[in-house]
Amino acid sequence: MSEITPSPTARPGQPAFVLVRPQMGENIGAAARAMWNFGLDRMRVVAPRDGWPNERAVALASGAGRLLDDAGLFEDLPAALHDCTYVFATTARDRGLTKPVVTPERAMEQAREIIAAGGKVGVLFGPERAGLENADIAPANAIISVDVNPAFPSLNLAQCVLLCAYEWQRQGSSVPAEVMALAKTDFASTLEVEKLGAHYEERLEEAGFFWPPAKAESMKLTLRNLWGRLNLTRADVQTLHGVMRQMVRWAEGRRKDL
Amino acid sequence: MSEITPSPTARPGQPAFVLVRPQMGENIGAAARAMWNFGLDRMRVVAPRDGWPNERAVALASGAGRLLDDAGLFEDLPAALHDCTYVFATTARDRGLTKPVVTPERAMEQAREIIAAGGKVGVLFGPERAGLENADIAPANAIISVDVNPAFPSLNLAQCVLLCAYEWQRQGSSVPAEVMALAKTDFASTLEVEKLGAHYEERLEEAGFFWPPAKAESMKLTLRNLWGRLNLTRADVQTLHGVMRQMVRWAEGRRKDL
Repeated sequence: MSEITPSPTARPGQPAFVLVRPQMGENIGAAARAMWNFGLDRMRVVAPRDGWPNERAVALASGAGRLLDDAGLFEDLPAALHDCTYVFATTARDRGLTKPVVTPERAMEQAREIIAAGGKVGVLFGPERAGLENADIAPANAIISVDVNPAFPSLNLAQCVLLCAYEWQRQGSSVPAEVMALAKTDFASTLEVEKLGAHYEERLEEAGFFWPPAKAESMKLTLRNLWGRLNLTRADVQTLHGVMRQMVRWAEGRRKDL
Repeated sequence: MSEITPSPTARPGQPAFVLVRPQMGENIGAAARAMWNFGLDRMRVVAPRDGWPNERAVALASGAGRLLDDAGLFEDLPAALHDCTYVFATTARDRGLTKPVVTPERAMEQAREIIAAGGKVGVLFGPERAGLENADIAPANAIISVDVNPAFPSLNLAQCVLLCAYEWQRQGSSVPAEVMALAKTDFASTLEVEKLGAHYEERLEEAGFFWPPAKAESMKLTLRNLWGRLNLTRADVQTLHGVMRQMVRWAEGRRKDL
């Protein structure tokens, strides 16, 4: 029941990710990397099989090694969860326990709400081979279950940590779902696109593109519609003007040669 | 430009995940596992560094090896994308290209819409060391960017594949965000909870729990509120009846002994 090292000062605003009896150091290191990829750095470790600190964990965590240095080490799960007010347990299998089962998405949404209201959240991850025991899960408030392919439900420890960390970040992200990256340019105005269309129309008229005459109007409309639909930037418009100017220049050179 | 092996018959309703010039066989195998965890099995491989088939990929893919057997192998990217009508390119860095940048979530939502409308979607993943080149990205319709910790943006190939596959599955999942798993029981009715409350109240009254008398009513209300809030199952109600009955039985035995 006793804590081996003092609990790290819980950084406010983050859940603690608790690795319960992890086996391979490599997986502990990979879990640290997965957490830190999404800005989480409060790791707790309960009774790691190969002792602590773990050289292989440190080697694998490259860049996220600070998480291991700062990790809380605990003899048992109650000690690791001493300050948590809400605990999620991750598990791949149905456990025959009466308990809410939530998606990672909903869990991390709830975690943000609980933490915003002043609570402390723990998320449990079981040992690689068999996962959490039912005795580990019983004290948890809810179960996190990832909706994997039933024919191949083989998420490993670091992958499960990655998905939960990703959902934590995603729930709090201010990044818009879609933006248009503009490379040193801006979208063209309707007038600029109109001028581009007129330029092409004039040159193509000279080149005999709109044939037969009965179809000319509908061919022009098709082209105007194309320019309108393309959502061109100013840079695009300049490029397309240049394309047409060069073709005309080249054609005039050839015609002189003839 | 030429295709080395015939393109696999595209399974309808799935995007193709295209590994572009992957380096380590281990990562190809891990990518296959990540895909198959979420039910995706259409992999295409462009110019893998160490040739094809790749022993280390097969070793790492255990359980998802079929994806490698069925993977389309292509000499170059245009060949790999010959039948795609919409292509996403994953990249960690800003590329200075004018292109829509979407989250994995939005990308897989769009992919489902495009595929439902009869289109074919490709998702490009670059080589481990440097990612996709701008020349690989230019023909793509949009860029997928994961909102990672700017201080540690170190997602590896298989992790990037995992997050995209997870989002594909999540966008199409019929699993509810939250369910209550019930272990061979059902929720108790209000009447059953009422009887439990009455049972406790009666026994606690006899045991002198509601003291001082002036506070008795508010203590009873507190208990009734507790039972109501706990969302008990029938099994829970039986357990709690049993707890109280046993305490009474034990107390009566002790009192006889006195």
